Amino acid sequence: MIIVIQCTDQIGLVAAISALLAEKKMNITAMQEHVDNVEKLFFMRLEVDGATVDHSIYKDLEQILPKGALIKINPGTAKKIVVLVTKEYHCLADILIRNHFNTLSAAVQCVVGNHIVLKDICDRFDIPFHYVPFEGDAVDFENRLLNTVESYEFDYLVLAKFMRILSGGFVERFSRRIINIHHSFLPAFAGASPYRQAYERGVKLIGATAHYVTNELDEGPIIAQQIIPAGHSFTVADMVKAGQEIETAVLARALKLVFDDRVFVFKNKTVVLE
Amino acid sequence: MIIVIQCTDQIGLVAAISALLAEKKMNITAMQEHVDNVEKLFFMRLEVDGATVDHSIYKDLEQILPKGALIKINPGTAKKIVVLVTKEYHCLADILIRNHFNTLSAAVQCVVGNHIVLKDICDRFDIPFHYVPFEGDAVDFENRLLNTVESYEFDYLVLAKFMRILSGGFVERFSRRIINIHHSFLPAFAGASPYRQAYERGVKLIGATAHYVTNELDEGPIIAQQIIPAGHSFTVADMVKAGQEIETAVLARALKLVFDDRVFVFKNKTVVLE
Amino acid sequence: MIIVIQCTDQIGLVAAISALLAEKKMNITAMQEHVDNVEKLFFMRLEVDGATVDHSIYKDLEQILPKGALIKINPGTAKKIVVLVTKEYHCLADILIRNHFNTLSAAVQCVVGNHIVLKDICDRFDIPFHYVPFEGDAVDFENRLLNTVESYEFDYLVLAKFMRILSGGFVERFSRRIINIHHSFLPAFAGASPYRQAYERGVKLIGATAHYVTNELDEGPIIAQQIIPAGHSFTVADMVKAGQEIETAVLARALKLVFDDRVFVFKNKTVVLE
Amino acid sequence: MIIVIQCTDQIGLVAAISALLAEKKMNITAMQEHVDNVEKLFFMRLEVDGATVDHSIYKDLEQILPKGALIKINPGTAKKIVVLVTKEYHCLADILIRNHFNTLSAAVQCVVGNHIVLKDICDRFDIPFHYVPFEGDAVDFENRLLNTVESYEFDYLVLAKFMRILSGGFVERFSRRIINIHHSFLPAFAGASPYRQAYERGVKLIGATAHYVTNELDEGPIIAQQIIPAGHSFTVADMVKAGQEIETAVLARALKLVFDDRVFVFKNKTVVLE
Repeated sequence: MIIVIQCTDQIGLVAAISALLAEKKMNITAMQEHVDNVEKLFFMRLEVDGATVDHSIYKDLEQILPKGALIKINPGTAKKIVVLVTKEYHCLADILIRNHFNTLSAAVQCVVGNHIVLKDICDRFDIPFHYVPFEGDAVDFENRLLNTVESYEFDYLVLAKFMRILSGGFVERFSRRIINIHHSFLPAFAGASPYRQAYERGVKLIGATAHYVTNELDEGPIIAQQIIPAGHSFTVADMVKAGQEIETAVLARALKLVFDDRVFVFKNKTVVLE
Repeated sequence: MIIVIQCTDQIGLVAAISALLAEKKMNITAMQEHVDNVEKLFFMRLEVDGATVDHSIYKDLEQILPKGALIKINPGTAKKIVVLVTKEYHCLADILIRNHFNTLSAAVQCVVGNHIVLKDICDRFDIPFHYVPFEGDAVDFENRLLNTVESYEFDYLVLAKFMRILSGGFVERFSRRIINIHHSFLPAFAGASPYRQAYERGVKLIGATAHYVTNELDEGPIIAQQIIPAGHSFTVADMVKAGQEIETAVLARALKLVFDDRVFVFKNKTVVLE
Repeated sequence: MIIVIQCTDQIGLVAAISALLAEKKMNITAMQEHVDNVEKLFFMRLEVDGATVDHSIYKDLEQILPKGALIKINPGTAKKIVVLVTKEYHCLADILIRNHFNTLSAAVQCVVGNHIVLKDICDRFDIPFHYVPFEGDAVDFENRLLNTVESYEFDYLVLAKFMRILSGGFVERFSRRIINIHHSFLPAFAGASPYRQAYERGVKLIGATAHYVTNELDEGPIIAQQIIPAGHSFTVADMVKAGQEIETAVLARALKLVFDDRVFVFKNKTVVLE
Repeated sequence: MIIVIQCTDQIGLVAAISALLAEKKMNITAMQEHVDNVEKLFFMRLEVDGATVDHSIYKDLEQILPKGALIKINPGTAKKIVVLVTKEYHCLADILIRNHFNTLSAAVQCVVGNHIVLKDICDRFDIPFHYVPFEGDAVDFENRLLNTVESYEFDYLVLAKFMRILSGGFVERFSRRIINIHHSFLPAFAGASPYRQAYERGVKLIGATAHYVTNELDEGPIIAQQIIPAGHSFTVADMVKAGQEIETAVLARALKLVFDDRVFVFKNKTVVLE
């Protein structure tokens, strides 16, 4: 069982929390905490031996923590996710493989594509695929997308190279529940064609960034980033190919962190407790 | 001896050049070439056994290469450089050490600082230090700077954490001869206080970029870049400290590449032949 | 079309080869060469526009190259491979995905497992799976393995976490055609249980190595290696899990290099022309 | 002020320690802990606001911690170090620079060299240099070395590319107080000429390892490691040159960690609390 706590910092929090758990004979198997001294915020993640859990803990924590504390007690079961895709297979295939072998800490409920090409790979893993083409106008498209997505219960929406921009309304409806992979080292090269931009600028490294989606395009809290070298011999196509490897790896890592309840959001940033 | 060639590409260039050197009995000990297929440009770097050099080679190369070809024949002696600094010691100290032990492929002629704090470390290495404080207006400051700098003969001006912006006129006077280290992964966080910007944005990696200086601030051709992880626990001060290590390393690497005649510039990019 | 050449070095080789191709109006689209000055060996890889290929080139090359030169002219079609596995899915699944989407530069002919658990994932991609359990003695097992493998035509055998040691006879039969992924940064931690060994030794980085298989266990020519950090908090199980990511990436990279004819072997080393 | 604790683990340690400090109104500004679940060991590092320190804390900690607990209370002043060198300048120069600008968390007392070449650089930084040549036999040499070293008070001996092997007796005299930089990714290529060994083996990455010195050559607890790529074009000399950069960086990082009391040793491993 995982307990996550986010609240304003005050002296003695660790002592109070760990004393409470000791009193309840709950066995802590892992604990990480972080204090942001600028914002005076306290973040904690606890793993507790499930057999020793006393379910009155939530109430007791509420009493000892500062007002407005965010407390989540997570039974450690797989998160439910819906994956949105366009045409590129690499991130989706990686998610499907991890899902299939139960190493994702999540269960893929369905995949929704605005192109149909990735239906076949979903079929091969017995995962429902819904084809929601971009037709009519953006509002119409998004309504159909919303209907499809909401016909499932899910914790997170994963944009696995979904190449359509979602409206503010859509994003707000699933606040802090949409995770995107952007194919650049943000904030460099936000927006369209980041590899083309990187090529024009002549950078020596290219990157990928996994982040929560907010109303501002490519401006949401960053969860994970990574880079690889890109020498002068790289064409745009070479960058795209090389970039796919890093996009896959960064998204996989970010999803695992989020699904394992290791990512906390405050202001426009994340704290990642590993 | 090093020969570098940059020209429009055409079929048979490698054959023609290597045949010419073979005919002249010049012994090639290393050769790298690159063709930019988009711009149809050819880049080559040759190391030739000095004992076998036939000095008529320049003329002969001119004859077989396309019009407008850039040919440089470099005896392999140390470049002459002038280093501009402000207050931070890390890049300068690293340059002084490499200079002192002859591993920089360059000879530091003097150091010029707009603060005086780094005079001591220059004295310790018997390198002239000139104090050119920022007083009066920018024009006046730059004139004094120019006078000081130009009292030396030099191939390159190295901005080793020089925190003043140079005017377009100054930059053009030393076109492609000024190298700067910027403390971010450009084009992210150009301009002032990049670590502060990186902190606010909540990035997971911070970087450093060595580039040629052009009229557009932090927009010149990139020579080398590198990054290091910066977790949520990093304050701005932590980023500054961690960043200094990478700034030092990236600038050292870029200088070595430039001084060894491995860097070619075209459009706003570099080709680096290693 | 790809041409690879490996021979003793002599002055003028590049000139002679490029002149020959120019004479035959064969259009070189990419060229990399390397000279090992210690062993006096010359390595070259050429990509030639297929439409311009003159097939008498092989003979002509033979005439201008030193005796004993190795020349391979490769039409650029996919290599044929057979994959050997045991129980772990990560490398195999990655290969199957890349094979399915035609980005492997190879075509998987079949998968052979000494356990049956990975049959299902092969079925999902319509790839034949052969179950060859380890029963009887090692000789018997290897005979059955050999029969199965040799019922296919193939260029390379890929050991994708195949946890059985092959005999010298088996290895020699497919000399320089067997590629293995070892879950350590060789030569550290050769042999069994490398993560356990790494844990005991308290290393701060763990790695993976893709190499050609030779008679000496984990001693063959190295094709690619990579590492990831492994802090004091890593248990052996954590190392295994983290290691799987890097094993997958390193094997994928090594296979792509080999299948694209970029890897040359000499002594117990490789030259990789990218 | 820094408090470090190492003891057998038991439930409630964090609660007890943090309650004790809260009771004494000591303000914790940073806290990291680690539990090794295999060895049942507890490690903790606390930074406490110096103004709030109650010096009875040591005794109080002794009372609440398990028997045999290791408690160190460190005023945060610079460690005293003696540096041993041979001929290579890179690690020493880096240490001298950091020492000079007070970023090492240590104060260099003197440098001892078995060659004299590095005297000049020490002179330039006003650091005493003692020349102790290897003459006579190993016992005689080590006696003279010991006399020189012990004429200073110091916390740590730093072997900054000191190319002589120290006897078991010498090492034991300064148990866990000698730090060495080895120019390979240990345990690969222990012993002499690691770059030569790496070259022969054809590895694709080379590394450096900072470790405590024990009686077994290159077998002591590892503090920090790092690697860099080394392609087929690297000669042994290229590896040496590239390796020097990484040796410098790894030793600097390890020293900073040790001097900031972040490194704990148990069995033959380290825990590094950052």
